Amino acid sequence: MKPLTDATATVAGLRERVLAFARERDWEQFHSPKHLSMALAAEAGELMEHFLWTESKDSATPLADPAKREKIEDEIADVVIYALEFANIGGIDLAKAIGAKLAKNAAKYPVEKARGSAKKYTEL
Amino acid sequence: MKPLTDATATVAGLRERVLAFARERDWEQFHSPKHLSMALAAEAGELMEHFLWTESKDSATPLADPAKREKIEDEIADVVIYALEFANIGGIDLAKAIGAKLAKNAAKYPVEKARGSAKKYTEL
Amino acid sequence: MKPLTDATATVAGLRERVLAFARERDWEQFHSPKHLSMALAAEAGELMEHFLWTESKDSATPLADPAKREKIEDEIADVVIYALEFANIGGIDLAKAIGAKLAKNAAKYPVEKARGSAKKYTEL
Amino acid sequence: MKPLTDATATVAGLRERVLAFARERDWEQFHSPKHLSMALAAEAGELMEHFLWTESKDSATPLADPAKREKIEDEIADVVIYALEFANIGGIDLAKAIGAKLAKNAAKYPVEKARGSAKKYTEL
Repeated sequence: MKPLTDATATVAGLRERVLAFARERDWEQFHSPKHLSMALAAEAGELMEHFLWTESKDSATPLADPAKREKIEDEIADVVIYALEFANIGGIDLAKAIGAKLAKNAAKYPVEKARGSAKKYTEL
Repeated sequence: MKPLTDATATVAGLRERVLAFARERDWEQFHSPKHLSMALAAEAGELMEHFLWTESKDSATPLADPAKREKIEDEIADVVIYALEFANIGGIDLAKAIGAKLAKNAAKYPVEKARGSAKKYTEL
Repeated sequence: MKPLTDATATVAGLRERVLAFARERDWEQFHSPKHLSMALAAEAGELMEHFLWTESKDSATPLADPAKREKIEDEIADVVIYALEFANIGGIDLAKAIGAKLAKNAAKYPVEKARGSAKKYTEL
Repeated sequence: MKPLTDATATVAGLRERVLAFARERDWEQFHSPKHLSMALAAEAGELMEHFLWTESKDSATPLADPAKREKIEDEIADVVIYALEFANIGGIDLAKAIGAKLAKNAAKYPVEKARGSAKKYTEL
């Protein structure tokens, strides 16, 4: 298989890799939406642990340490792998869902009101 | 902008959309690795809430209900949007990280040992 | 210090233990509501990992294995320790908050409507 | 029932309240360790959402706003309610588990080494 890189990898291509990995191991029987949502949340928690006690402004520091960076890259990869498999099992077009959600977010957070603000749309 | 779909959308293309959305709103100031990891975990929790009390085997049911399906698609989209922005801020090639993690997982879970088993690699 | 046990330990007593632990180490400087909510969520994710791929009906099995049980007890303890410290830092009477929330839940889930149902109150 | 307050409420007393609430509704059938760990993690995510984009040092601000404070108190109550029910179902003495975990933490983080440091014990 050719090496994956963001510039050329399509979501569909990544989904196929993840699905093939699960199928080879006969793991689809465990991959219900419920289980995958749990696994995704657990991995998200592990990613977050790398940034627990640092200040927000200092939180790029672990990414500058090669050993920590590798762990962080593994965690974010795990999160996205489970998201891709969730899309596989649920029959969801992920890029389309992202496009639709960005459109909704754009309506909730119009540029002129939301610029420079971290407020929730209900408080803008 | 042309509609997004998994068959043609590259990870790089999705990352650009997400980055443009944040930049237009001057939101990069809030997008530290720490904050993004928190937002991602919070969205993962929301996704999981759709499957809380159902049995695993019944957990595709909410996806068959159009109103619930739309909410679930929004949640998984949110998760991936934050993952893409985390990659943007961290300078991470996400597809490459996924490829590297799948290779590690393949070594931890060789097909012949892992087939049909939900055990952790430490217990195989 | 006398051994702690649910029959006699008050919430206030547990809170004091947790606060003393943090103060001895000069850790209150790190214990903002934000950081504690993150730590709590990360520990909740670790607890959940023990039950990821099991069916709900089989999920008491890990608790019957002494080594796994000890780990699970450690994880739930971590969750509650952070909840107690969150209450310490936020000046929240936790038992009172629990009483108030149970009263709200009782109004949302009246016995006659909610009995035997896992539906959300918005769907009852 | 008398009002609950931290000064007098024992863990056992709180556990009984939570168990009675579930039993009245015949909800114990849904309260497997797996399901409760998911519910706990989902509530922890909701708690965290109140502090997403604030800086750590400003994160007590929402607690000073009465409407937000009530929501935050509800979220932390939900977290602890699920922790108490998890202890009920798992037959765990929560105060004892907390005492045991604090003892382990004290060994991992001796006062003289850990004072004023947010480092993980593996890095002290």
